[in-house]
Parts: sequence; structure tokens; C-alpha cells
Amino acid sequence: MADPVSRRRLLAGGALAVGGAALAGAAAGSALAAPAETAPVPLGSATEPFWGPHQAGIATRPQAHAVFLALDLGPGVDRAAVVRLMRLLTDDAARLTQGRPALGDTEPELAAQPARLTVTFGFGPGLFRAAGLPSPVAPLPAFGIDRLEDRWSGGDLLVQVCADDQLTVAHAHRMLVKDARPFGTVRFGQHGFRRAAGAGPVGATQRNVLGQLDGTANPAGDSTDFGAAVWIADGPMAGGTTLVLRRIRAELEAWDAVDRAGKEFAVGRRLDSGAPLTGTFEHDTPDLTARDALGFPVIADGAHVRRARTTEPGARIYRRPYNYDGPAGPDGRPDSGLVFASYQRDVAGQYLPIQRRLAEADLLNEWTTPIGSGVYAIPPGAEPGRYVGHQLLES
Amino acid sequence: MADPVSRRRLLAGGALAVGGAALAGAAAGSALAAPAETAPVPLGSATEPFWGPHQAGIATRPQAHAVFLALDLGPGVDRAAVVRLMRLLTDDAARLTQGRPALGDTEPELAAQPARLTVTFGFGPGLFRAAGLPSPVAPLPAFGIDRLEDRWSGGDLLVQVCADDQLTVAHAHRMLVKDARPFGTVRFGQHGFRRAAGAGPVGATQRNVLGQLDGTANPAGDSTDFGAAVWIADGPMAGGTTLVLRRIRAELEAWDAVDRAGKEFAVGRRLDSGAPLTGTFEHDTPDLTARDALGFPVIADGAHVRRARTTEPGARIYRRPYNYDGPAGPDGRPDSGLVFASYQRDVAGQYLPIQRRLAEADLLNEWTTPIGSGVYAIPPGAEPGRYVGHQLLES
Repeated sequence: MADPVSRRRLLAGGALAVGGAALAGAAAGSALAAPAETAPVPLGSATEPFWGPHQAGIATRPQAHAVFLALDLGPGVDRAAVVRLMRLLTDDAARLTQGRPALGDTEPELAAQPARLTVTFGFGPGLFRAAGLPSPVAPLPAFGIDRLEDRWSGGDLLVQVCADDQLTVAHAHRMLVKDARPFGTVRFGQHGFRRAAGAGPVGATQRNVLGQLDGTANPAGDSTDFGAAVWIADGPMAGGTTLVLRRIRAELEAWDAVDRAGKEFAVGRRLDSGAPLTGTFEHDTPDLTARDALGFPVIADGAHVRRARTTEPGARIYRRPYNYDGPAGPDGRPDSGLVFASYQRDVAGQYLPIQRRLAEADLLNEWTTPIGSGVYAIPPGAEPGRYVGHQLLES
Repeated sequence: MADPVSRRRLLAGGALAVGGAALAGAAAGSALAAPAETAPVPLGSATEPFWGPHQAGIATRPQAHAVFLALDLGPGVDRAAVVRLMRLLTDDAARLTQGRPALGDTEPELAAQPARLTVTFGFGPGLFRAAGLPSPVAPLPAFGIDRLEDRWSGGDLLVQVCADDQLTVAHAHRMLVKDARPFGTVRFGQHGFRRAAGAGPVGATQRNVLGQLDGTANPAGDSTDFGAAVWIADGPMAGGTTLVLRRIRAELEAWDAVDRAGKEFAVGRRLDSGAPLTGTFEHDTPDLTARDALGFPVIADGAHVRRARTTEPGARIYRRPYNYDGPAGPDGRPDSGLVFASYQRDVAGQYLPIQRRLAEADLLNEWTTPIGSGVYAIPPGAEPGRYVGHQLLES
């Protein structure tokens, strides 16, 4: 590499320019209404900060690509080894997210386009066990709708790697796996994607593979509601949160057999606009008491929007889901669905009540099947020179 | 869907704006040097033309995402059935690439962001056999370096689906598979990716997962050299071409064990700039006669750049490769490599001489393993109202 310092300066300059553009774009409203551009935005050089009170990759505007990597710690790994592992991976993440090669990087050029890379670490119950500490998280209770497979579930250390460029994700993923290998084995790596960066207006709600607008009811990443829903307020986890990760297969064959009215009845929203069946626009509040001429609820008792709805800010969850799409089977059957990632302060107080209502009677259950599940404590962020998880591992 | 006509108008408007922006951007040179933007480019609404003398997706500036889908025709499929299949898929492709739902589209909203979607059809020997026609293509001869697996090789009908948005690719892929199902089975679906649209300057050479700049010697998509290398001049295939598709696993573990000088010796180019070892800049012509102070060739006899090099325009090939990256194995071993796609008029006259030289002595062979292989005739493009392949199937 010719001159890492000048490259870094170049990157920093590019990132500032992009940040300014994003703000200007948001202020201008819909991108479709914007005038023609003079040059494409170099999204490859955009960066997200790594150090801070919270880990990046949660309030961060979701990037286009992700891999959720789960590792099982080896039998000899104790608290001291976990600390070494987290020092190593924190250093990798701090460098790679800023467009700099990891210390042992064998393809340093692939680190040069961070594309808003974030690396977020989560601790499963097994990591706390290895460290001789009580675990603040536990697997979800079993639900009748679950068809969980071991290969998509659990894991001692969860690493969420997100960027707007899939090559960036692939490189970061590989560097992290290489450094983690002496400490354990890979349990799974789940790739996910959303709309490409710049595909449409910034902040627009995404569609999932079922065609639904997904995430309409999410608190905004920079809002007070978000903080109340997501960040833990005190204790060693202060500034941290929890992640529930579910791999949810979309039964697209069956979904295709339903007509439009049937799909909208199941969701409780219109498929085109995402508006509730009682409203006109996506963000209209659903009227759960409205009845039709025959006296039936307009939004059915089992409609997804009714079962999932929570109005109290502190009881809401923040969904940051990705789509997945594997190769079709020989018979053309798709392997698609959602890598559903939900962040909340308190799994029992926020996620579980919603999930129980959904498991009990969500009409959408007929076309979705949870095949993977994991719960992870997301430690607070770290200040420069420290490592992610020190608040827990040095307690 | 509220109003497909007004949506289409909106898309057409957006596409024009984006086209203008891309031209302006190219004229301005490096994107990093450009001033801050006022709004993000809505790349989701950009379209590539479908109808024309050549199929799209070949000279088209490569999109960020691809799936290469191979189908095996069912036992009862004859020429009339192949014609029906191609009418159906041509109609799907003509609509989806312009941001309109396929006729039987069950998630029409997912069709609304074409993101430069192209769909390119290729006919394998088995399709010609089914149609009772002589095949202009045959599988490659076996090479000593091959470790081919059936599941990544062959196929009667090859469909290359590319777009700058992975959700667009996933939706088009699914619609095409659904319509093709009555005619056969899915042999493989290979996902691939390049740098994200807008990640860096338009037209910059891409890096592959080995970190190499890949495609430096490619003829430019709009050049005379491109036409001479790619488009067949006469006969029913006039305006068409051939595709060699190879799945090449990168032996990243072994590659990582080599130092930088060793890698550059094997490639014959510098890893940072892509310059030949005898030059300074990426596009400098390699001096294959240069010798060092001890009298050894600066670019080794087995260096990739020497073995792959062809100077005669009509003997060159056009590479349009994608990276792949599957989940790591339990031991952390990566599953990464290249979905190598090469277009040329004549496989025997252009691809094979290069491939023979590489198979014989390319130093890079130590770190790359071909595990899939297919050769397909790419029919010319079609005019509106016709279907792709009619020049061959109605001969």
C-alpha cells in the first residue's frame, strides 16, 4: 500500500462530504423530487463512528448488507481468553470501520472502502458461562409456531457486520473469523440484504420478500422513543441493549396462492401504501375499534398489525431486519425470508409480550415459520483504548 | 397497486434524471473529487433498455448484484415448448427490467425499483438437443486444474439476472423461476456481487476476494474492441455471443500464507495499484521482455498477467465476473471465490487459447480451483413483440 496516511485523509474527507450530502438529502425530502446530480455519491468512503457510549449498528441507519456471525467458544476458553478475544475483535472493528486494514490484514486494499461498516458484538448465555458470570439473557421460551433448527440458533458470541457494500462485509467478516478461530468454531453466518443505498429516498420503510412494508411502527433511530425502547439505563449494561435474532422462513408458495384482499386482511394494512385498512397513508394510526357495515372489525382480531401493536413507548421494540434469499431448490421452491433482528432494553418486558400475542393468533403465522432463534446481550459501546464488553468482563 | 400508469411515468422520469447524472459524473472524472451532493441518486429507478440487437447485461456496465440461474428442461420439452418458455420469460424480463410487474406477479410492489435490472438468456447444448437443433456450443474440454462439481456445472437454460439492488434481483429471480417451473428443474442459482453502485468512481476496475484488481485488460463496453471480441457477425447468432461461466473457488487460506512479494510475483502486477511489475499505473502495458539485474524476467514465465495476455483485439475475451461468499465452515474456512463470466464470439478461438495457457502454467492456479463450468450460446437481442432466441428456434 502506497501511503496509508494519505489514504486515511482521503477517506476522512470523503466521509465528511457524504455526511453533508446525506443531511442535505434528508432535508430536501423525497429523492425522486431532487434535481439531477452532478456526480455519484462515493458511498464507499462513508464511515460510521466506532467508539462511543453505544455500539454502532443499532441506531445506525440500516446498511444494505449484513452478515450475522455466531461463534461457539472452545472448551478451554475462560474469562481471560474471552477478554483477549474481545480486545482483538474490538481492535479489528475499530480499524476496519474507519477504512483501515486490520492488524493482520492480508488483503489491506479490501479495507479501503468502509461503506458505513459497523461491527456490533453480542454475548450469548454461553459466553457468560465461560466467563464465570451470571447471564443477563436466556433463550426465548418455545413457541408453538417454532420449527427451530440448531444450525440457525444460539451461539456464544454474535457479531453483526453491516455495510452498504457486500465486498466490504465479506472482507470484514473474514478478518473477524480469522482472528476468532483460535477461540472457537463458527456456528452460523447468515447473510442478509435490504434495498441498496441510494435506491430510494433516505429513511423510506423497506419492503420484505413478502412485498410488505416492514418496520412502519419502528421508533426513529434518533428519537427519545428509540432511547426509551432500546438503551438500558443503569448497571454494567448501561448504554447496552439486547438482541433477539430470529430466522423466519417466508412460505412464499402458500403466500402466492392467497389473493390480495386475503393478504391485506392478514396484515391489516394495504400492500401498496402500507396504510392501515382504516387509513390512507403508511403512518396513519390504525383504528382498532373501527367496524364495517356488517359490524365486523375492519382490522381483524388476528391481523398482524393488531397483534404486534404496542403504543407505550417503553414497551416498543426496534426492528432492524434483513431479507435473505438462498438458491431455489430443484423444484423451484424458494429459500427466502427474514433475518429478523429486534433490539430492546428488556426481552421479557418488551419482546416477549408482543411475540406471545403473535404466536397465539397472528394470521401471518400461516406464511412465516421461525427456523432460527437466539438472544444476546449487547454490551455498551467502548471508549478509545478499551474493548467492547469490558464493563461486564471486568465486573 | 394504486395507478400503474402514473408509477411508470414516475419511473421513466427518475431514470432519465439518473442517466443524466451518470453522464455528468463520468465527465467530471473521479467521484472523490466531486463537490458535495444535494441529494442521493435514486438508483432504484434507473433502467436499462431490454429490446435491441444485443441482449442487455453484457455490454451493460456491470451491476452490483447477480444471480446465475441454470435450468434443466423436463423430459417432455420439445421445440414448441421451448418457444413457449422463451415467450413467457422474455415477456417477464421485458416488464421487470422496466420496473413493471410480471404478468403473474404476486408481489407487484417489488417490481417497482428496477435498479438497472437486466435479464440475459443463454442456451446450453441440452436446449438445442431438446429443440432438435445442432448446438453451436459444447462443454469445455477437461483441464488438469479442474475439480468440477455437477451442482455448479452445465444446465440447458442459463439466466443471468443483474441489478444494483439485491431485492430486485431476488424478486426477478423468483418470478422467472416460477414461470419456468412447468418446463424443468433448477440446476443451480449462483449469487454474486461486486462493489455497490456509487461506492467509488464509475467504471473503476473491481477488486476480487483475493484483493486483486480484476478486469484491467477488459475491452471497454462501448469500444470497437468490445464489438470485435464479443458480438457474432453473421448467421442466426448475429448480434449474439457465447458465455463461459466458471465457478472458481479462492483458496484464501493458502493465499493468506503467501507474503506480498510472492503474491505480486504470481500475478505479475502490484496489488495496491494493479500496475504491472514493469510499470507504474494500472493501465500501463506490461513489458514481458524486461529483465532484472540478474537477467531473470521481471514478469515471471508463469505470472498470471503473462499467461492471460492477448493483444490482438479479436482474440480477447470480455470478463464480467462477480464475487461469491458463502458462510464460513465450522472451522472458519471461507467459502469464497469468483463467479467468472466471460463473453466472446468464439469459445474455441478466443477463450480456449487463454484458458489452455493458464491451465498449463498460471502461478495463480495454486490459489484458485475451478469447481463449476458451463458454456452457453447467448442469442441476439429481440425486437419488441418477439422473444429471445426466435432467430435460432424458428430456423
